[in-house]
Amino acid sequence: MTREVTYTLQVEFGDCDPARIVWFPNFFRWIDAASRHFFVQCGVPPWHELEKTHGIIGTPLVDTHAKFVKTASYGDTLHIHTSIAQWRGKSFVQRYRVTRGAELIMECEEIRIFAARRDGDATGIRAVEAPADIRALCA
Amino acid sequence: MTREVTYTLQVEFGDCDPARIVWFPNFFRWIDAASRHFFVQCGVPPWHELEKTHGIIGTPLVDTHAKFVKTASYGDTLHIHTSIAQWRGKSFVQRYRVTRGAELIMECEEIRIFAARRDGDATGIRAVEAPADIRALCA
Amino acid sequence: MTREVTYTLQVEFGDCDPARIVWFPNFFRWIDAASRHFFVQCGVPPWHELEKTHGIIGTPLVDTHAKFVKTASYGDTLHIHTSIAQWRGKSFVQRYRVTRGAELIMECEEIRIFAARRDGDATGIRAVEAPADIRALCA
Amino acid sequence: MTREVTYTLQVEFGDCDPARIVWFPNFFRWIDAASRHFFVQCGVPPWHELEKTHGIIGTPLVDTHAKFVKTASYGDTLHIHTSIAQWRGKSFVQRYRVTRGAELIMECEEIRIFAARRDGDATGIRAVEAPADIRALCA
Repeated sequence: MTREVTYTLQVEFGDCDPARIVWFPNFFRWIDAASRHFFVQCGVPPWHELEKTHGIIGTPLVDTHAKFVKTASYGDTLHIHTSIAQWRGKSFVQRYRVTRGAELIMECEEIRIFAARRDGDATGIRAVEAPADIRALCA
Repeated sequence: MTREVTYTLQVEFGDCDPARIVWFPNFFRWIDAASRHFFVQCGVPPWHELEKTHGIIGTPLVDTHAKFVKTASYGDTLHIHTSIAQWRGKSFVQRYRVTRGAELIMECEEIRIFAARRDGDATGIRAVEAPADIRALCA
Repeated sequence: MTREVTYTLQVEFGDCDPARIVWFPNFFRWIDAASRHFFVQCGVPPWHELEKTHGIIGTPLVDTHAKFVKTASYGDTLHIHTSIAQWRGKSFVQRYRVTRGAELIMECEEIRIFAARRDGDATGIRAVEAPADIRALCA
Repeated sequence: MTREVTYTLQVEFGDCDPARIVWFPNFFRWIDAASRHFFVQCGVPPWHELEKTHGIIGTPLVDTHAKFVKTASYGDTLHIHTSIAQWRGKSFVQRYRVTRGAELIMECEEIRIFAARRDGDATGIRAVEAPADIRALCA
């Protein structure tokens, strides 16, 4: 059994393209918010605090695989059901199912890392072990 | 041998997040532009013309798999090298390699369909066969 | 006395720029959602229904003036307080105050029109009189 | 006579909304890029370098006023003509005219400041005098 956290959003007019359906990069915008929302709901402090305590600046994506099953449009209420499917040393698999009522709209599986800054490099990042206290909060 | 088309862009300040690197949904924004740019460079008319002649309203995504290899930040010039890896009846595989000079930044492989409106349904779409004249233009 | 409707949002990591504050175009994204949310809360049908009944496809912006008073960052909860300051024939003034608790973050005043399609022109629009039934709903 | 710098962009499908016209927050995205492009073309170093040499982290907006004159849609090439209309101690007025060929699409006038971090405050910023060397580069 893994913990599942749900993030809810309204699709807005401006999220849709001339075909009147959600323009797909917006799904990734929402999934990124759902990823953080998952950690916040689990009690993990925000990254700007984790940078001070753990040196961690975020959980950037290294791999994402998404399937788009049905279209969504403005006025729709979507739910993103988020869980961590696997912990893998310096990375983890985060899984998302986006639903509208009983319908599956899209699903996505990501590999993310816990990232710290690389010394002396303003934009370089490096992967670090998932801190035990963060893993415990997400269990 | 498949045709490859290159789309070039500048990473802007607003494309980057508090970690000072490109916020990943922006890569999908650029890839979507590169997808269309590919067809335009191949001589395929814009979708609002194709809607009149072929009933096709676009090439929505049904599956995407992306790997993020190196970070990019503002001031970077990125090149997106786009090709069609496979034609599959009502869908096709479009492939992208995003580079900064000689470095690979990310790569992505998508399955897209040629979409037409579903009768009597404002936002519903259905897949149609890739028109032969469009396939010929992209060869 | 004019009706005021409040739209609430969470600022996400990806809404912020390398200066760690909300990248300002995102305020306009939220204001556009708040504009529609105002009409929905007043009982005005969504535009895709209004297109059928009134020929109206939306309320595009013709003028906007915004003042940015304080910065906001991720984790903040913002409230957008929306009202219609004035009805002017074919246009109206919509006003927004964005707050975080008791603090004013930004404010904005827009002129929008009720738009219909121009005959025989796929992207052209023209202003039409604000329908009396819509004005009554917003009073 | 003030210096004018032109920034050119292609309107993409995903920049447009269900009314098939540019969704207006995207104009602010482009204007923000044009603002920085102006300084880069004038020879001003990027902000991540100016942070080290001048403590300046950017030129955040404090006021913007935009007029939308004509709609634009995907496939359009837009030019943003940028200049500095006035220097005012700790702020300056930046002006933009967005054109498509000979047509004016929108225009915008902003007040921006040169911002430095406020000590001991991760997201707080304060206005500083426009450095003389930067003003000289923009003349």
